[in-house]
Amino acid sequence: MSAALPPSFPMPPDGFGPSELLQLGTGAEEDEPCLRADAARNRARLLEAAGRLVAEHGAAALTMEAVAAEARVGKGTVFRRFGDRTGLLAALLDHSERKFQAALLSGPPPLGPGAPPVERLRAFGCALLRRSIDELDLQLAAEPSAERRHTAAPRRFLLGHLALLLREAVPDGDSELLSHTLLAYLDAALIHHLTAQCGLPPERLRTGWLDLVARVTRTDPAV
Amino acid sequence: MSAALPPSFPMPPDGFGPSELLQLGTGAEEDEPCLRADAARNRARLLEAAGRLVAEHGAAALTMEAVAAEARVGKGTVFRRFGDRTGLLAALLDHSERKFQAALLSGPPPLGPGAPPVERLRAFGCALLRRSIDELDLQLAAEPSAERRHTAAPRRFLLGHLALLLREAVPDGDSELLSHTLLAYLDAALIHHLTAQCGLPPERLRTGWLDLVARVTRTDPAV
Repeated sequence: MSAALPPSFPMPPDGFGPSELLQLGTGAEEDEPCLRADAARNRARLLEAAGRLVAEHGAAALTMEAVAAEARVGKGTVFRRFGDRTGLLAALLDHSERKFQAALLSGPPPLGPGAPPVERLRAFGCALLRRSIDELDLQLAAEPSAERRHTAAPRRFLLGHLALLLREAVPDGDSELLSHTLLAYLDAALIHHLTAQCGLPPERLRTGWLDLVARVTRTDPAV
Repeated sequence: MSAALPPSFPMPPDGFGPSELLQLGTGAEEDEPCLRADAARNRARLLEAAGRLVAEHGAAALTMEAVAAEARVGKGTVFRRFGDRTGLLAALLDHSERKFQAALLSGPPPLGPGAPPVERLRAFGCALLRRSIDELDLQLAAEPSAERRHTAAPRRFLLGHLALLLREAVPDGDSELLSHTLLAYLDAALIHHLTAQCGLPPERLRTGWLDLVARVTRTDPAV
């Protein structure tokens, strides 16, 4: 599934992406607003169930059957909706990315708008660390190849968001290069190495993030 | 060739690694010191020729035939020495890593010992950037998978070196986490993205490195 994830860059969080519209548009009899909203709700319910399974048991344990059982629907419904397990994993990651993007764009501060940029930088890393630790399996399985890693749409969104905050917080810095540095700290493969292979507690990664933001912005460390 | 590179962690730069000893040890008649030194010199000469080819034409253009022509030896000599192209690429990367390690451990300051830690950090990044830009193809081709990326021996060496300098330069920081952050700035896939895909000039990456070192160590930017 590496680079085949649907782009989720400039889309509204819980609305219809192009692929969703495409899927729903195949049956002309489903083309009424109420049925489409219903289908979207069902899809979201399946993805929430899949998300719970991954958080509890890891991506390896995720099967179409387990999702059906968790969401209390027939197996056929899951297959009709996502095609196969790869489609389910891609949709799950996309769903989680959209939720995160929505929190950045319109959620409550300091993750969302309305707080000073340094505070938003701190909140960004702590939230992304938490999400990455919850979804580590999923993110590792979906990691694109070296050539494509930096051009994937979800990553571009996060980089753009960081660069925006950095331009405000560090007007004299190269916000583009600094955004890569900050995002690299939150890279799934690195988090996996530090937590699973080196045994570092997530709390140390969180403290390290706050320290890094302080150094990069030349501010005092958060207490 | 991903994770099959021979470890080059604690070895002397131009001495014999275990794999070299193994290769030379197969013929008992070659087991005399003068012949072994001669074989090592020939091997180094082939690798220098291969390095020039990669720097000029990229890893894709590297063939056993081209190395033989560049080093003015028969094609058979190159095949006997490296087995195949994958073996040649692995040996080439290993050779370059050893040269870099030797420069860090015993070369002239500020890359080598004898300069203040912040100056050594600056020199480290500038030298590694230069090397990565020269060998980008080679490093991308050899990049291990996400699970193994952070445990490869050459990377562990560079991390250990950075952590050592950071412990001196930033006694109040988490030198282990900061070393990952600094090394991430110098990651081959990122350099490839920024230079080849985004068109950033290498000079901007260099300036960005000096700025990052200044922020991380809370010192004044270098002039």
